[in-house]
Amino acid sequence: MKTQEPAAVDGRGLLRVRVDLAYDGTSFAGWARQPGLRTVQGSLESALAAVLRQQAPLVTCAGRTDAGVHARGQVTHVDLAPGVLEACGGRTPQQWPAVLLRRLNAVLDDDVRVRDVAVAPAGFDARFAALWRRYAYRVRDAERVDPLMRWHVWTRPGPLDLAAMNQAAAGLRGMHDFAAYCRAREGATTMRDLHQLSWSRDQDGLAVLHVRADAFCHHMVRGLVGALVRVGEGRQPAEWPAALLGATERQSTVPVSPAHGLTLEEVGYPAEDEMAARAVTTRARRLAAGSRHTADSARP
Amino acid sequence: MKTQEPAAVDGRGLLRVRVDLAYDGTSFAGWARQPGLRTVQGSLESALAAVLRQQAPLVTCAGRTDAGVHARGQVTHVDLAPGVLEACGGRTPQQWPAVLLRRLNAVLDDDVRVRDVAVAPAGFDARFAALWRRYAYRVRDAERVDPLMRWHVWTRPGPLDLAAMNQAAAGLRGMHDFAAYCRAREGATTMRDLHQLSWSRDQDGLAVLHVRADAFCHHMVRGLVGALVRVGEGRQPAEWPAALLGATERQSTVPVSPAHGLTLEEVGYPAEDEMAARAVTTRARRLAAGSRHTADSARP
Repeated sequence: MKTQEPAAVDGRGLLRVRVDLAYDGTSFAGWARQPGLRTVQGSLESALAAVLRQQAPLVTCAGRTDAGVHARGQVTHVDLAPGVLEACGGRTPQQWPAVLLRRLNAVLDDDVRVRDVAVAPAGFDARFAALWRRYAYRVRDAERVDPLMRWHVWTRPGPLDLAAMNQAAAGLRGMHDFAAYCRAREGATTMRDLHQLSWSRDQDGLAVLHVRADAFCHHMVRGLVGALVRVGEGRQPAEWPAALLGATERQSTVPVSPAHGLTLEEVGYPAEDEMAARAVTTRARRLAAGSRHTADSARP
Repeated sequence: MKTQEPAAVDGRGLLRVRVDLAYDGTSFAGWARQPGLRTVQGSLESALAAVLRQQAPLVTCAGRTDAGVHARGQVTHVDLAPGVLEACGGRTPQQWPAVLLRRLNAVLDDDVRVRDVAVAPAGFDARFAALWRRYAYRVRDAERVDPLMRWHVWTRPGPLDLAAMNQAAAGLRGMHDFAAYCRAREGATTMRDLHQLSWSRDQDGLAVLHVRADAFCHHMVRGLVGALVRVGEGRQPAEWPAALLGATERQSTVPVSPAHGLTLEEVGYPAEDEMAARAVTTRARRLAAGSRHTADSARP
């Protein structure tokens, strides 16, 4: 049953707000705030502080992108006091998401844009309620480079055999230990459920990897791309990427492809009535897996 | 009959070389060389001078793009001494186009790329032998902006009615006097033959205008886009753009859309055996039309 009432505040008197973002990662040192560096989290938190005239609030995201990685569908949340939101301009709770969106975009540089602002449904958590993350990795393998796309497409010489790469990708889908493909993080699990992993040609002739999983460990997509491109170049057989899944640590034979080809395209969440249950079970599972760095477990 | 012999040199002992280019126009003050400004022509001529260790040669292009306009399919020619080309690295006339391509790209910044180098067929002239120029103009009319495309897509608010814009476009195709849409240039004809003018949605949801003509007068594509967008916004009827064709001078009611949405995609040339005839007739026609600024008559 939908209600027109404003969502309930939490025990601290704060309201959870979902903020969707798109950014060109070229000039950011990644998502995570770092002293003295320009980061997406730092920019958004500073913009919120400026617009709401308060101390910078903590913003949590679904996918902690590395330096140079882009996003079209990043999802974040931030907990804010209703009074502060009212003061920001919207006269009613129905109005202020649109006001906040407009004001944030007026303050932010044009390489990061707020695409949506909404009161989050009960139980929403940008990170722990997410069911899956979907990334795209774009490769130009034609002789004729395209300078207009140089910031978000990896250009490398020689044609790639997409059929062979898709044959190799089939062996990687499903629940596996991806330790061979990830930068190690002590105590963190590298078991991941890869829902989708397939290459296709887009209208511009680019080779695009579409990859979706419950979550990704650090450098995982870029390691998968590196291995699959070796197959596409004919330098490794199609069986090679899946054969590495048995390894318990990162394999130095797996090249890590450049960050700038990678874009976080979309994050999936459950229906509102299943939201709270999902956040609780994910959090518990990640903690049970012994991760001491849970904040990093959704990194690509 | 194809021959393996090197193409004949001209009366000055020079060989005509065709150089195809792609560039991101964002950081260029347009095509044409200007003192103290970074231009595409200036960059290419300087690169040729550096690679060939000679004075900068004159480069002629098919479409003189304005500041901020991009190209994927720009075509140019330059006349060079065979001895200079041999000294540049290729041991045989068959080798040196590939050597020149690689060396130019090593010297040029990465926002301009040489895509092809070839000995030009007899009678080739990048500008006067061209049969047509094809441009694309990309517009994002969705609420959700995409920062990754901000350099080559015009983002404007509110959805556009592409059906109405295509209805309007139909009335503009064919041979007309486009004076209403062009920046005036004394003595230059504004008669142009518009082969193609139609809007479609691409895979990213962008509205893309595909436009092809024998040549364009200055600001013509951007004026056409400005007028058609007025129709797409519902602010002018579909009959309006064609009704302006009767005007003998630029109409102030026609807005000029921003340069950065425009990309020169392709230039068409006749078959080799018709090349020389085309160049001669085009040059004669342009001169007969009384243009005192013939070098500008292919500008969009």
